[in-house]
Amino acid sequence: MAGGARLVGRLGRHSTFLLLHLPRHAAAHHHRLYSPSSSSSSSQGHYSKMGDSSEKNGHGTLTRVLFCGPYWPASTNYTKEYLQDYPFIQVDEVGLEQVPDVIDNYHICVVKNRRIDSDIIAKATQMKIIMQYGVGLEGVDVNAATEHKIKVARIPGSTTGNAVSCAEMAIYLALGVLRKQKEMDTAVNRKDLGIPVGDTLFGKTVLILGFGAIGVELAKRLRPFGVKILATKRNWSSDTMPSDVDELVDKKGGPEDMYEFAGEANIVITCMTLTNETVGIVDHKFISSMKKGSYLVNIARGRLLDYKAVFDHLESGHLAGLGIDVAWMEPFDPEDPVLKFPNVIITPHVAGVTEYSYRTMAKSVGDTALQLHSGQPFTEVEFVN
Amino acid sequence: MAGGARLVGRLGRHSTFLLLHLPRHAAAHHHRLYSPSSSSSSSQGHYSKMGDSSEKNGHGTLTRVLFCGPYWPASTNYTKEYLQDYPFIQVDEVGLEQVPDVIDNYHICVVKNRRIDSDIIAKATQMKIIMQYGVGLEGVDVNAATEHKIKVARIPGSTTGNAVSCAEMAIYLALGVLRKQKEMDTAVNRKDLGIPVGDTLFGKTVLILGFGAIGVELAKRLRPFGVKILATKRNWSSDTMPSDVDELVDKKGGPEDMYEFAGEANIVITCMTLTNETVGIVDHKFISSMKKGSYLVNIARGRLLDYKAVFDHLESGHLAGLGIDVAWMEPFDPEDPVLKFPNVIITPHVAGVTEYSYRTMAKSVGDTALQLHSGQPFTEVEFVN
Repeated sequence: MAGGARLVGRLGRHSTFLLLHLPRHAAAHHHRLYSPSSSSSSSQGHYSKMGDSSEKNGHGTLTRVLFCGPYWPASTNYTKEYLQDYPFIQVDEVGLEQVPDVIDNYHICVVKNRRIDSDIIAKATQMKIIMQYGVGLEGVDVNAATEHKIKVARIPGSTTGNAVSCAEMAIYLALGVLRKQKEMDTAVNRKDLGIPVGDTLFGKTVLILGFGAIGVELAKRLRPFGVKILATKRNWSSDTMPSDVDELVDKKGGPEDMYEFAGEANIVITCMTLTNETVGIVDHKFISSMKKGSYLVNIARGRLLDYKAVFDHLESGHLAGLGIDVAWMEPFDPEDPVLKFPNVIITPHVAGVTEYSYRTMAKSVGDTALQLHSGQPFTEVEFVN
Repeated sequence: MAGGARLVGRLGRHSTFLLLHLPRHAAAHHHRLYSPSSSSSSSQGHYSKMGDSSEKNGHGTLTRVLFCGPYWPASTNYTKEYLQDYPFIQVDEVGLEQVPDVIDNYHICVVKNRRIDSDIIAKATQMKIIMQYGVGLEGVDVNAATEHKIKVARIPGSTTGNAVSCAEMAIYLALGVLRKQKEMDTAVNRKDLGIPVGDTLFGKTVLILGFGAIGVELAKRLRPFGVKILATKRNWSSDTMPSDVDELVDKKGGPEDMYEFAGEANIVITCMTLTNETVGIVDHKFISSMKKGSYLVNIARGRLLDYKAVFDHLESGHLAGLGIDVAWMEPFDPEDPVLKFPNVIITPHVAGVTEYSYRTMAKSVGDTALQLHSGQPFTEVEFVN
């Protein structure tokens, strides 16, 4: 294994770090690298020197990180920048179609939107960690990974700015559909003034489907807009719930309440993880439960929405608008008929893509690579297997 | 005068109603029209019958309201709808160039963006009230109106939803420049994914120039985004300040502090009234006081910004983005060079144009016309002369 570290023991599903055999050189500067008082840049500088003197020239072993595919280019670039002083970590990005051919060379794989199925996993003979640059792992065959003793990890959104970034984007898209962004653009180009008449968040009822880290940040920000907030979540007793959740949410429900809540909402915002249970959950039954003239916003995963149900309800006018950062296929065909409706707006899957979250997540990937390399406990990621 | 009402007495600058001679037919249904327990629609219905029986056929006198110009069409349409059951109030809209020719026929003039100068005022021989469908009266020669004994009025934004609507739009534009709306559109069209890297409101310092009704609503909504808020205002002791202003604003200053505050801000949002003192106030001196890489948002009036100063600082990269709902000339030339920068976004002067505020302001104009007609005290507008 890279850097001489070795997996020991079978780890529980929710363990947040791996027990690794600690190589000598890593132990030597453990405290300086992870001391809370040392800033990221000073520890980087220190580690760099260690790398130059003992890692690269001493052991001569590289830890290799593969980013799959050309999209979200800042994920690769920012990680490279973060690791630029650590020559014993190599970061590469290859096209989606090349992934199966090269994956056997890598120890860590950042999937982005590449589907990592059992065939690819079988080829990943040196792989230790498959991870997402963010939280969504729906494209990874976790069972196959577990079978091959590969850990699968996400970067928790609550600490990296991902949830904050996505919550801001949800508000941006909600305001965009309420104000009729496309009609505003048309008015500007036609030299019209004072049209269209938009709508306010003020006075509306917002249903947040999935009240995880993003939902919490979203509710905090929506509160002072003067909205009523409904939310559904599988398990409200989670210890990650903020203590003031009752001030944030007017009505809490489980998945079984979503249809009733939809009937009260003017705006529905999907913030769920995509799983076998949630794929297509926003379907004909759900959308027709929504009020006529209500709005739908999706900043989570495209396939939470049933395409035909959305299309039909836009066509009938039941849905007054749709704002999506994510789509059914990505990248999405800009000529797709659903984008031709004047009340549909789309952004290129960038809800979580901000300087703040991307620099922080680059640190998470970088530190994970460093920790794997040196056999340190993993501090930045959450394992799902 | 319309409906037999007559102005009596000289009114102070801040009086909020006019003393009018109360004609008999108005006195007869005064209590039913303004009874707090009667809903708007039921009083409308009642007044309508009164109008049909005694106003139109009895006195035969019309109160005539003129909307100037074709822009913000919902202002005229919603006012007509509100008054549809009152046939003794006539609402017309004419093109900007026709206004001087017809203004002598009207008792109330809603200016929109028509400049109402002393020449036009001299022709307005029956005019009692010149008003804005909103707050901005910079186009009205108030001295000339006063000379001709015409009252000039605005609709206070704090009660109509105008301030709320404008505050929401300010946040929309701020998020739009931070997320690089034009680059997002380009990415979608090119089938790119995960670019551009945007920026969050979280962690930023926002300077609100002009802390009136809009500024207050804006600060309330910005608070939970995790921003530091600076604000300037001429007079902080105003009795319209909310009691929790110190929780909303981290640093309060007067106009003299704006340059220093600009040096601390990542985002400047202009929410000032346009006056002789504020025209062009965002000039070279001010913008160069802003941090390199900061953003500018204007939802107030276009001419608060010095065009050349804005253009030059966009060209140099000192300004990272500009989001404007208002422009130097309106409607603004969609081919204007300032709009060619990839980090400039514009909306068609619709910050205050929402169902909520426009229905409420239609009621304000409608009630003002009804009150003028019947000699009731004015309850909906604020007079400035």
